[in-house]
Amino acid sequence: MSNKTSLQVIPVSIDHDVQPGENIAVLILASSKLAINDGDVIVISQKIISKQESRTVNLNMVIPSELATGIASEYQKDPKLVEVILSESNRIVRMNNGVLITESYHGFICANAGVDESNVEKGYATLLPKDPDKSASNIRKKIFDMTGKKVAVLISDTFGRPFRLGQTDHAIGVSGMESILSYEGKQDTFGKTLRVTAISSVDELCAAAELVTGKTTKCPAAIIRNFKFIPNNGNVISMLRDEKEDLFR
Amino acid sequence: MSNKTSLQVIPVSIDHDVQPGENIAVLILASSKLAINDGDVIVISQKIISKQESRTVNLNMVIPSELATGIASEYQKDPKLVEVILSESNRIVRMNNGVLITESYHGFICANAGVDESNVEKGYATLLPKDPDKSASNIRKKIFDMTGKKVAVLISDTFGRPFRLGQTDHAIGVSGMESILSYEGKQDTFGKTLRVTAISSVDELCAAAELVTGKTTKCPAAIIRNFKFIPNNGNVISMLRDEKEDLFR
Repeated sequence: MSNKTSLQVIPVSIDHDVQPGENIAVLILASSKLAINDGDVIVISQKIISKQESRTVNLNMVIPSELATGIASEYQKDPKLVEVILSESNRIVRMNNGVLITESYHGFICANAGVDESNVEKGYATLLPKDPDKSASNIRKKIFDMTGKKVAVLISDTFGRPFRLGQTDHAIGVSGMESILSYEGKQDTFGKTLRVTAISSVDELCAAAELVTGKTTKCPAAIIRNFKFIPNNGNVISMLRDEKEDLFR
Repeated sequence: MSNKTSLQVIPVSIDHDVQPGENIAVLILASSKLAINDGDVIVISQKIISKQESRTVNLNMVIPSELATGIASEYQKDPKLVEVILSESNRIVRMNNGVLITESYHGFICANAGVDESNVEKGYATLLPKDPDKSASNIRKKIFDMTGKKVAVLISDTFGRPFRLGQTDHAIGVSGMESILSYEGKQDTFGKTLRVTAISSVDELCAAAELVTGKTTKCPAAIIRNFKFIPNNGNVISMLRDEKEDLFR
């Protein structure tokens, strides 16, 4: 009845804590049980990219500013952590209920500018990669060099969102595919032209990957097979809403 | 290296336009190429549920109020459509750039209260199911009666979101599983207790399903296999943020 094929979301476990300078492409190829195919989407957790890029901070070495100390006392947070969050942020978007939501210097609106103390040594925090689109691009190129396969690479992080409880994974870095699948001008099943519908395929792919990677297991990547993406030089930055066009800032 | 299994996202195509009163459970079982397994998650597009439940409106029959006419002229919309949107809404959340974001009477914050003119006959619009958790529950029970298999059923709709361009699928109805996977009190890979992390598994499952269902093909459902959910009587309504705790309303 359908000529559509099933999507596979294949977990890639890595047996050690990723160290600064490790070659992520080599690591994923070595850890994957399957050979990479043309058209695979490789989704990688932000955490291992940050570690590989030495984007970790020893909180003991941080001297908090007055602003950070003030915010920290109000919101029952560690002043040193708040200092790091502020240094990663363009601005504070919301601050309430013990939650600090900022716009990171990349433009991501998320809790704590993506600064995170989980799955890293005690006393340390990870920062988001400096340029996640570029991180994704570097890995994609290395995979191509090693295998000759044309894949897309996404870097994923777990963000909360307005209106709904629970967090979901979102793309913070994209390489090798268009971020948005546009249906503009296409026809629905009744032959009517669809209103502007544009699907954030990359966020849906990251969400799908999170279902297998989880948070407490050493499974920081997934290969998604049989998703037909449009190969091009898409990136995540073009998917961030312009401030003027965002009704919720 | 990993004992994790791959997730499969299996499209279920349906060869006709779903009619009022059709048995969705029978339709999905008949249309699926595979037998249903215990533990499968069945994700169904809102559109066919709305049609099955006769939640469609002939726009020619609608007499717009003064308010609807005023809003429509400001936002270049059809007054009859605006009237239907308002009648499905608790309140208007944002109104700008030709976009009308309301809180539906269920509590969903989305464009046009979920009222949609795509993939329905010209001159008609579909409304969201009246009680999507109940719709999901009814289908889940029918599948159990027919097959003896314990599944989870999600009803999915495509919503935009703040901050990021592109839409993604979200659960609007849940039956048979917990909506939120909580990691509270669990330990990370360094043995540290995780900060409160709660993943909206149901939204991630709906996002994964959208990757195979799409918008222009007659594929309104997907079976997700090998996702280990916690079977219980979860629902979507408990996943909606309380207005007082939402920093973006």
